[in-house]
Amino acid sequence: MDLSALLGDFDHRDWQDVTETDDPIRFAMIGVGWWTREQAMPAVESSALCETTVLVSGDREKAEDVAAGSETVEHAITYEEFHAGEASDAYDAVYVVTPNAYHLEYVETAAELGKAILCEKPMEATIERAERMVEVCADRDATLMIAYRMQTEPAVRRAKDLIDGGYIGDPVFVHGNMTEPILELVPDPDQWRLDWDASGGCAAMDIGIYSLNTARFLLDADPLRVQGSVASVQEEFEDVPDEHAAFQVTFPDHVFALCTASQNAAMASHIRVTGTEGQVRVEPAFYPWDDRKLHVSVGDTDTEIEFEQIDQMEEEFEYFAHCLLTDTDPHPDGEHGLTDIRTIKAVYHAAESGRAVDLD
Amino acid sequence: MDLSALLGDFDHRDWQDVTETDDPIRFAMIGVGWWTREQAMPAVESSALCETTVLVSGDREKAEDVAAGSETVEHAITYEEFHAGEASDAYDAVYVVTPNAYHLEYVETAAELGKAILCEKPMEATIERAERMVEVCADRDATLMIAYRMQTEPAVRRAKDLIDGGYIGDPVFVHGNMTEPILELVPDPDQWRLDWDASGGCAAMDIGIYSLNTARFLLDADPLRVQGSVASVQEEFEDVPDEHAAFQVTFPDHVFALCTASQNAAMASHIRVTGTEGQVRVEPAFYPWDDRKLHVSVGDTDTEIEFEQIDQMEEEFEYFAHCLLTDTDPHPDGEHGLTDIRTIKAVYHAAESGRAVDLD
Repeated sequence: MDLSALLGDFDHRDWQDVTETDDPIRFAMIGVGWWTREQAMPAVESSALCETTVLVSGDREKAEDVAAGSETVEHAITYEEFHAGEASDAYDAVYVVTPNAYHLEYVETAAELGKAILCEKPMEATIERAERMVEVCADRDATLMIAYRMQTEPAVRRAKDLIDGGYIGDPVFVHGNMTEPILELVPDPDQWRLDWDASGGCAAMDIGIYSLNTARFLLDADPLRVQGSVASVQEEFEDVPDEHAAFQVTFPDHVFALCTASQNAAMASHIRVTGTEGQVRVEPAFYPWDDRKLHVSVGDTDTEIEFEQIDQMEEEFEYFAHCLLTDTDPHPDGEHGLTDIRTIKAVYHAAESGRAVDLD
Repeated sequence: MDLSALLGDFDHRDWQDVTETDDPIRFAMIGVGWWTREQAMPAVESSALCETTVLVSGDREKAEDVAAGSETVEHAITYEEFHAGEASDAYDAVYVVTPNAYHLEYVETAAELGKAILCEKPMEATIERAERMVEVCADRDATLMIAYRMQTEPAVRRAKDLIDGGYIGDPVFVHGNMTEPILELVPDPDQWRLDWDASGGCAAMDIGIYSLNTARFLLDADPLRVQGSVASVQEEFEDVPDEHAAFQVTFPDHVFALCTASQNAAMASHIRVTGTEGQVRVEPAFYPWDDRKLHVSVGDTDTEIEFEQIDQMEEEFEYFAHCLLTDTDPHPDGEHGLTDIRTIKAVYHAAESGRAVDLD
């Protein structure tokens, strides 16, 4: 690795060839909640490679209200109209950001309509539905990317550059954490994240996936075995086992990742890789509104790298659009996302049984 | 908690009443390796409450050489002479710093001679021998402290003050790590730490105990259950299962501690407690030659506290001497140390069986 890239051009997009286009990727947003309005749409609006042209919601009025505030949105339609193919000439791709257990139906329709799909993580609420999503997209030859925005976060990519370049030697341990007070952020005890059927899991599924997937990305490896514990204490979490989740993942070459996630703790996040020669740590790491930092320790030298914060969502949308414009497969595809679903479901089995669970 | 103590008087000894004495505690050092010579003896020499008067070694010449460099040492004797009670009028207490599996015999003799005992951690190589140590000291009414120097490290004590004072809310997760390249630090493949019979375990036993015990101290709680994984990869570690160890400890109230330890990784250490309202982290934490720092995050405020580094060994020896001078029981007593031995042995069973192990 060229260290000057780390110091002088921290946020360079090593994946990018095309920086402008006359035909931006036109997105239909499936789901118009706060994340779409406050994170996804502004990111797409800033992007040179894509634009939002269609909004899809269960609530037409809400969709129309949001559309009225946008210069690019041409259609505000209902979920039923989406499934009926309405306005399908007006978009090239969909961004699926509904509750987890409803991702599949929108991906199926999008694939049938010949659209590309950017689907939020976790990709679905069960292994069977995630597998079905992969099959559907393969059958229809539809491009499917799972929205792991850490994979295009510059701090994480530079950490990976350092690891790949051998700067910390062979990885030995990963520690990862993501915690938030979900009932303060979304003060609704009936929200879907606390509903097992809608979410497929709470702390491990919704935010434990950040440590897990980022560990996989940094190590360029997939889990072999998991152990774990979960606990739900507060009444609001009675429908899910994991208000709190702690799990340990065995990767090839005896690399162990120890991950924690809580929906009822102070907002915090980090990921750290300790190797035979040094350490890299991204902290804060996972929340887009935090100023991420990269910390590197090798020998007696500790370095804390601050950099211009980029919009994680813009990076992700531009990466996906770039894949479509250059006819390139996205790295976090359906099979990639399915591995996380299998791993997290194994965490629940391990926690329930008190036994390590091997992944095939 | 008075926050001014954190900012203005960081390293105050909240345990101390007596600051000087005409009758310092006179120590016999049992084992005269580099740790005794370079860490323990200089600490005791700086102390107002204790002094080194006797050296005990398998090698009389080595002991005499070391004694010649000291102004306070009166006797350099062999292990056999120690067991025979030689020079026993010249010391009040012993510091046992032999390989783990030999601690018991020196503690037994010291207890029989009516001496107080500061015994290095892990207290012994097996549960049975650790239990025997507790019994022997109880039978002889001998004061036994296990040498957990983190419990008198100011950064750890201030972290505990913050936790006890409710500053981070209720603890939810602990992450701890201690790693070192033991074969670079001690370039001898036949060293006792790599010999199961002499050590009772490698990474988990020798250094995983730091994260475990510091978590117990910070949480003021004892483990209920453990899960874990161990791996030995390099040839030099073929006699022990844990060149690397990763384990997860369940504490009361569903608090999970995730700990890693390696004898073949870059030197690094930290301990972090995430609570419902904030985080505290000591990093670096466990190596006496590192400049420890305390990091506190509550709400949107991150604070990094640097302070005058104190000598961890001097704190520990003065605390122990202070207990003896004031007729106070040390916090980390034999029963306290025994809990760690039982916990770490359970980690090995959990790793071997792939099953969670409950602690009684």
